[in-house]
Amino acid sequence: MLHMPFEIHVGPNVRTSPYFDATVADGVRAFSVYNHMFIPGNFGDPDAEYDRLINGVAMWDVAAQRQVEIAGPDAERLVQAITTRDVARAAVGQGRYVCVCDHDGIVLNDPVLLRLSAERFWLSIADSDISLWAKAVARERGLDVRVVEPDASPLAIQGPKAMDVARDLFGSWVDDLRYFGFRETALDGIPLVVARSGWSKQGGVELYLTDGSRGGDLWARVKLAGRPYGIGPGAPNDLERLESGLYSYGADGRYQTCPVNPFEIGLGALVDLDGDDFIGRDALVRIKAEGPARRRTGVVLDGPPVAGNARPVALRRGDDAIGVVTEVAYSKRLERSIGHALVAVGTPDDGLTAMLDDGPRPARLADLPFIKTP
Amino acid sequence: MLHMPFEIHVGPNVRTSPYFDATVADGVRAFSVYNHMFIPGNFGDPDAEYDRLINGVAMWDVAAQRQVEIAGPDAERLVQAITTRDVARAAVGQGRYVCVCDHDGIVLNDPVLLRLSAERFWLSIADSDISLWAKAVARERGLDVRVVEPDASPLAIQGPKAMDVARDLFGSWVDDLRYFGFRETALDGIPLVVARSGWSKQGGVELYLTDGSRGGDLWARVKLAGRPYGIGPGAPNDLERLESGLYSYGADGRYQTCPVNPFEIGLGALVDLDGDDFIGRDALVRIKAEGPARRRTGVVLDGPPVAGNARPVALRRGDDAIGVVTEVAYSKRLERSIGHALVAVGTPDDGLTAMLDDGPRPARLADLPFIKTP
Repeated sequence: MLHMPFEIHVGPNVRTSPYFDATVADGVRAFSVYNHMFIPGNFGDPDAEYDRLINGVAMWDVAAQRQVEIAGPDAERLVQAITTRDVARAAVGQGRYVCVCDHDGIVLNDPVLLRLSAERFWLSIADSDISLWAKAVARERGLDVRVVEPDASPLAIQGPKAMDVARDLFGSWVDDLRYFGFRETALDGIPLVVARSGWSKQGGVELYLTDGSRGGDLWARVKLAGRPYGIGPGAPNDLERLESGLYSYGADGRYQTCPVNPFEIGLGALVDLDGDDFIGRDALVRIKAEGPARRRTGVVLDGPPVAGNARPVALRRGDDAIGVVTEVAYSKRLERSIGHALVAVGTPDDGLTAMLDDGPRPARLADLPFIKTP
Repeated sequence: MLHMPFEIHVGPNVRTSPYFDATVADGVRAFSVYNHMFIPGNFGDPDAEYDRLINGVAMWDVAAQRQVEIAGPDAERLVQAITTRDVARAAVGQGRYVCVCDHDGIVLNDPVLLRLSAERFWLSIADSDISLWAKAVARERGLDVRVVEPDASPLAIQGPKAMDVARDLFGSWVDDLRYFGFRETALDGIPLVVARSGWSKQGGVELYLTDGSRGGDLWARVKLAGRPYGIGPGAPNDLERLESGLYSYGADGRYQTCPVNPFEIGLGALVDLDGDDFIGRDALVRIKAEGPARRRTGVVLDGPPVAGNARPVALRRGDDAIGVVTEVAYSKRLERSIGHALVAVGTPDDGLTAMLDDGPRPARLADLPFIKTP
């Protein structure tokens, strides 16, 4: 995040989340827009928000992580067609991190797939209109499915104390959920799906609220349960994800502007080339055989703490453009400026220069993650 | 627009436009996000910005109105498949306003179609990822086309004096362009396409810059040429579009949340049912025969000037929900609060109540546009 003192233009062309009023009441300072919906960016105290995520527990309005629901007799066929993993092996109650690729193997999104029943799936998506992709494929193939956006809005509880809050809310069964495991339940009559997931490496759950009129109620209930653990509001944290090596569709690549394939960005493990056919499979077989031309990596920048960046910047070695630095931030834990980069395979690790907007910086490559969580 | 004092979170997950730095230098106050790109919302003086648009000339960074380029031997076939108009009749140099519909006739976008050559088209899109839709249809049908996002970023010059500025910049031939007519040219070596278009009813042109590195140069050149006419920066204006009756994809409907067909929103004239086949045609033939169930209309609200709205609100008649008010604003020219609504066909014009967030308001329907431009 780069602090620039601009307001956000609020109008009905961007949707509000079910938690919008609650986050306003709790002092949200900045919003971004994700899947055409306002999503909190921060609550005015980045250091405290980061600290809660790393050492305590944070609650985030991530309703903008919308669901694409695919339901009907041909649901499994469609999900198989548009995701890189073998869907026949996806069990009800056990989510999986997947890629959606185009016919050339380019990543269009990296959602979590939830199988709610034999014939009903959710793709919990990053920031692109995957429902358009899914619907076009479904109708062009004549599949008997519905592709809709359900009333399902995640609220994330993240941090080392997140499972304590979840246990107090739901009971000890939440500890039995494996990572990406989920269960439909209710909380004081508020219908939701509890999933062991979230866009951080600090652990916790996401509550997929399935009655949008109850957003304020759920927010208040989580806040109350979290009070003994020092819970506070926050938002998906750019610094933590850079430290932890999480991929950010949009920041690290976007099919329109920086097309990447799964092997380049370290998501090759999500590609099941031995399973059933899917869109992009032939291209990915070829790419895997040839070896990807680029790779995602960490980068360390010398000099004073970086302020952040508003856009990707070039990474050079001498006069050669060897890649792009996608996002940077200053890590107090590491006491250095770090970032993610996409570089040509074979690039030497050092002697590089990152062309930040405020001037060039000596840089060197580093392995991801910067910080491993236990 | 509803003024709420939130900042916008700036990070590389949202793209910056080629004019971003220039708009920052010229005092942009608020941004929104459109097609995953920052777009100015206002420059801090809404009254002056509105006045320039109505009585003078304004310049807008509308680079977020991205292009989907469809090129190759089957380009005409793909464009025909995904748009509601007879593309065989689309001439090079003459743009057309079109709908992109899904197989059920639901509007996915309302772009301007520009035919740059026999086998090369742009869709100049509203806020949804139409490239995903276009690419899926193309590849599923095995068409020989490329679907890409070109380096093409519109800068709009709008207002009654806009053509004076355009004439001074390019010469008198710009007066010969019909509405949506366009021509490829250059300005001091800056490559661009001049089109007689723009998202207002005040007239003017859009300059599609085709070298993103020259955004600052083009912005400065337009600013200089506009100085004798009092040009100033602005942004697509919600109030003017409400007065003029322009449809706003996103605010007035969005396929995920408020699906509409072209006949409901007054865009039936964009549907060529007598031409070649296209996706959604069968559904639209049926809808036209049955008559649409809802219609887009103006609405007038009693009481003190409205502040705007962050989300659509219900429109009631007694206890019956008869529709939704999509966007409201106070018009100084009309000295009343106005809005757009989507209502059940047959709804009486008066005795209605709009359920605004700050309380119910007596309301009545009114014809669009509220104000006709000469």
